[in-house]
Amino acid sequence: MSHQALDFLFAPRSIALVGITISKPDHWTRTFLDSLLKFRFKGQIYLVNPRGGEIHGLKVYKSLDDISDEVDYVISTVPAQAALKLVEECAGKGVRAVHFCTAGFSETGEEGREGLEAELAELSRRKGVRIIGPNCMGIYCPDSGLSFSKDFPKESGSVGFISQSGGNAADLVRLVMWRGVRFSKVVSYGNACDLNESDFLEYLGSDPYTKIVALYIEGVKDGRRFRQALTKIAGEKVIILLKGGTTAGGARAVAGHTGALAGNDAIWDALCKQLRVIRVHSIDQLADTLVTLSFMDIPRGRNVALIGVGGGASVLIADEFEKRGLNVPPLPQTIRSYIQEFTPIAGNILRNPIDCLETITETKSLVRILDIVSSWSEIDFLVGFLRPSQASPSLRGVMVQMVERMLRKSKAVSKPMGVVLEPSILPKEAKEVFSFIQEFVSFKLPVYFSFSGAADALNLVLNYYESLDNKLRTKPC
Amino acid sequence: MSHQALDFLFAPRSIALVGITISKPDHWTRTFLDSLLKFRFKGQIYLVNPRGGEIHGLKVYKSLDDISDEVDYVISTVPAQAALKLVEECAGKGVRAVHFCTAGFSETGEEGREGLEAELAELSRRKGVRIIGPNCMGIYCPDSGLSFSKDFPKESGSVGFISQSGGNAADLVRLVMWRGVRFSKVVSYGNACDLNESDFLEYLGSDPYTKIVALYIEGVKDGRRFRQALTKIAGEKVIILLKGGTTAGGARAVAGHTGALAGNDAIWDALCKQLRVIRVHSIDQLADTLVTLSFMDIPRGRNVALIGVGGGASVLIADEFEKRGLNVPPLPQTIRSYIQEFTPIAGNILRNPIDCLETITETKSLVRILDIVSSWSEIDFLVGFLRPSQASPSLRGVMVQMVERMLRKSKAVSKPMGVVLEPSILPKEAKEVFSFIQEFVSFKLPVYFSFSGAADALNLVLNYYESLDNKLRTKPC
Repeated sequence: MSHQALDFLFAPRSIALVGITISKPDHWTRTFLDSLLKFRFKGQIYLVNPRGGEIHGLKVYKSLDDISDEVDYVISTVPAQAALKLVEECAGKGVRAVHFCTAGFSETGEEGREGLEAELAELSRRKGVRIIGPNCMGIYCPDSGLSFSKDFPKESGSVGFISQSGGNAADLVRLVMWRGVRFSKVVSYGNACDLNESDFLEYLGSDPYTKIVALYIEGVKDGRRFRQALTKIAGEKVIILLKGGTTAGGARAVAGHTGALAGNDAIWDALCKQLRVIRVHSIDQLADTLVTLSFMDIPRGRNVALIGVGGGASVLIADEFEKRGLNVPPLPQTIRSYIQEFTPIAGNILRNPIDCLETITETKSLVRILDIVSSWSEIDFLVGFLRPSQASPSLRGVMVQMVERMLRKSKAVSKPMGVVLEPSILPKEAKEVFSFIQEFVSFKLPVYFSFSGAADALNLVLNYYESLDNKLRTKPC
Repeated sequence: MSHQALDFLFAPRSIALVGITISKPDHWTRTFLDSLLKFRFKGQIYLVNPRGGEIHGLKVYKSLDDISDEVDYVISTVPAQAALKLVEECAGKGVRAVHFCTAGFSETGEEGREGLEAELAELSRRKGVRIIGPNCMGIYCPDSGLSFSKDFPKESGSVGFISQSGGNAADLVRLVMWRGVRFSKVVSYGNACDLNESDFLEYLGSDPYTKIVALYIEGVKDGRRFRQALTKIAGEKVIILLKGGTTAGGARAVAGHTGALAGNDAIWDALCKQLRVIRVHSIDQLADTLVTLSFMDIPRGRNVALIGVGGGASVLIADEFEKRGLNVPPLPQTIRSYIQEFTPIAGNILRNPIDCLETITETKSLVRILDIVSSWSEIDFLVGFLRPSQASPSLRGVMVQMVERMLRKSKAVSKPMGVVLEPSILPKEAKEVFSFIQEFVSFKLPVYFSFSGAADALNLVLNYYESLDNKLRTKPC
């Protein structure tokens, strides 16, 4: 299937929401209409429900046939029992694709329902109506104004995400959107009775807007085709994989979620190693890896300078980094003596990690420290760290100024740099941390939420870059 | 040293803050005065600084000698160079113990300063003045109104924490206080030139208020004595250890932080295994373990029912639990059919994990599901899970009602139970999640912040209980 072949899914000219609930305006399935309106979808929007009526001033048609204009794309929330009939109607109306949000098929594990899904697939092929799903959230493509959440970013980006789970897709978008990552296309494709992971992978592989391909896969419909697509694309783009169902219990959950077969985990591991696919093991790790690929300039090597606040925190972050094969080399005496010129030795730790609370709050010399440390030839990248519990009010104020000075007025940091800001569950602190995050993100710095998360992602991304020839080592976006 | 021997440290009758800053009212060292006032310390508070003056209406004495009454305990923020003189003055005044917050000793790695610390230790022994520190935050003992943060809880609890790092001590208290954990005594003891980890461990071992002993250790002064104390106490109380400096870089950070020798990590591992000390590898893990020990009734075994919202989340949480040797057995057909009587099969996953979004929001039947699942004989404990991104406004409202009904009006849950609530960095969501946390905590439920965190802690605590004879298996508090 060529790239263009699926373009109609991502940029429909008109959309009908068939089965939209009239009686329950708070029901979560209303997200499809809310999102199209919030994103100012440029094409026509039609609502269909046998009851008729009106929602937000939009007429509700009693059937697809009642719509006089062409309908390109249907988002279905009809019950499973009405799915076949809907495909027939769509074929009659010239609809090219139906996204069945509708659940209640093979994932239920009930025999009749597996048969129903098979029939749906067969009918769609026969009638030439492509199906996304059933049992999924469909497409988020900000450029077309198509989304399954009104809270997703309206700007487009370079990450494509193929997710068998709608919830995990939404989680990932939300986890990285405040850290600056944007998406070209996201597909939640559920049971994949017609269009499956290979279709979407091939499509994103040849999509010029997609530089990084992220995958959440529960099971694969056609292993050979998937492997071929993966092999081809892995040579051209960065691929990150989160595989769900790696344990017996997880595999049973997969069967109950999308009716898929989870497969042998060792095979997945070998495949990832062979094809240089970055394998992650949680949504958080996937998020941290995307943030790193998007915003961390490529470090020349594994030597890191850690600069932050807290002696005990310094010890723990050094352990987390070195445990993962990142090196925290000792600060040489020459570098140390430069810093000591303006930094009291009591209350600061002038090693690596550098704990310079006193200097930051007292003498506002963080810029000088960063300048000196980044000039240290042995160091490949820098990571700053701050826990909210150790950020006194005065430190917080100074931090914002420092970031400003550090990154706008001075060229202090000549090496790649990231920041760990631990979040807080306390509403007041959470608000402050959030404003810090926004400040750092505005300077295109990668922001992490834990020492281990930062170390994991940096290690995974360094592994990836190290596996490439030197000349191929370019930041994907 | 007998238990009573250190009581004077934790319940002084009068305290002098020597070296309190006059010129910098926003300096972090003011936390000692702020905390004593906020905690309404019952004894006398004296302030000492050669400049004299007044702070918050309290007279500032120019020297210790100017105070006419007895002084029991001193908190020192004088410069390192003035430390010896202060000990002399304390001895003259009859002060029993000095907490030297003062830094600038062996942790700097400078020869003269190591000598200074040795002198300080020698002088304190000669004069009979005990020293906590130097380079530390000292004591938090809510019962006495002694604290190094004004934001710590005022109520006492059953966890004792010995931490070489003041920052890590503060982090732990803050991480668990909103989840219901309270402390008997916390000591940040820094360089340990006089009183060291063994003194405090022996003390907490015989302290009747301390049921769980948590340790953050960077290095040990007297290995033999420490091991003896650990062996004795491990037979009587639960001990949890976080060891800082497990890597070469971490060990260098330890030297720079408290001047300690980190030691061989394999020895620590063997020691923990042999003595049934629960070994954790981060502050978050330590926090999760404390929450589990405090609020999770002891499960009979490793079989868990996972109940929450989200199909993809179900797959990932099942993987996290099974990866750690916790079992997520399949829901038997009988149990499933009971739930199916009132739960639509489409949009819900009636396996294990049970994903019952539709049921919770539509039919308010969570109580019935919990009732049925906890009656399932194969299940030892239950864990609920919710990600903020998947909690629609209607679900949030229902959740609060459900918790209420579930735990107050019904006896639905006859098995141990915990809840995973993922936090959000978004201020608005963070506020909501925080109110959920408070709701659950008010019912004495353990609350976790990630799937992996919950699985880690439950596995560690189950390992611990499994290592005990059946008759010794009692919840520590």
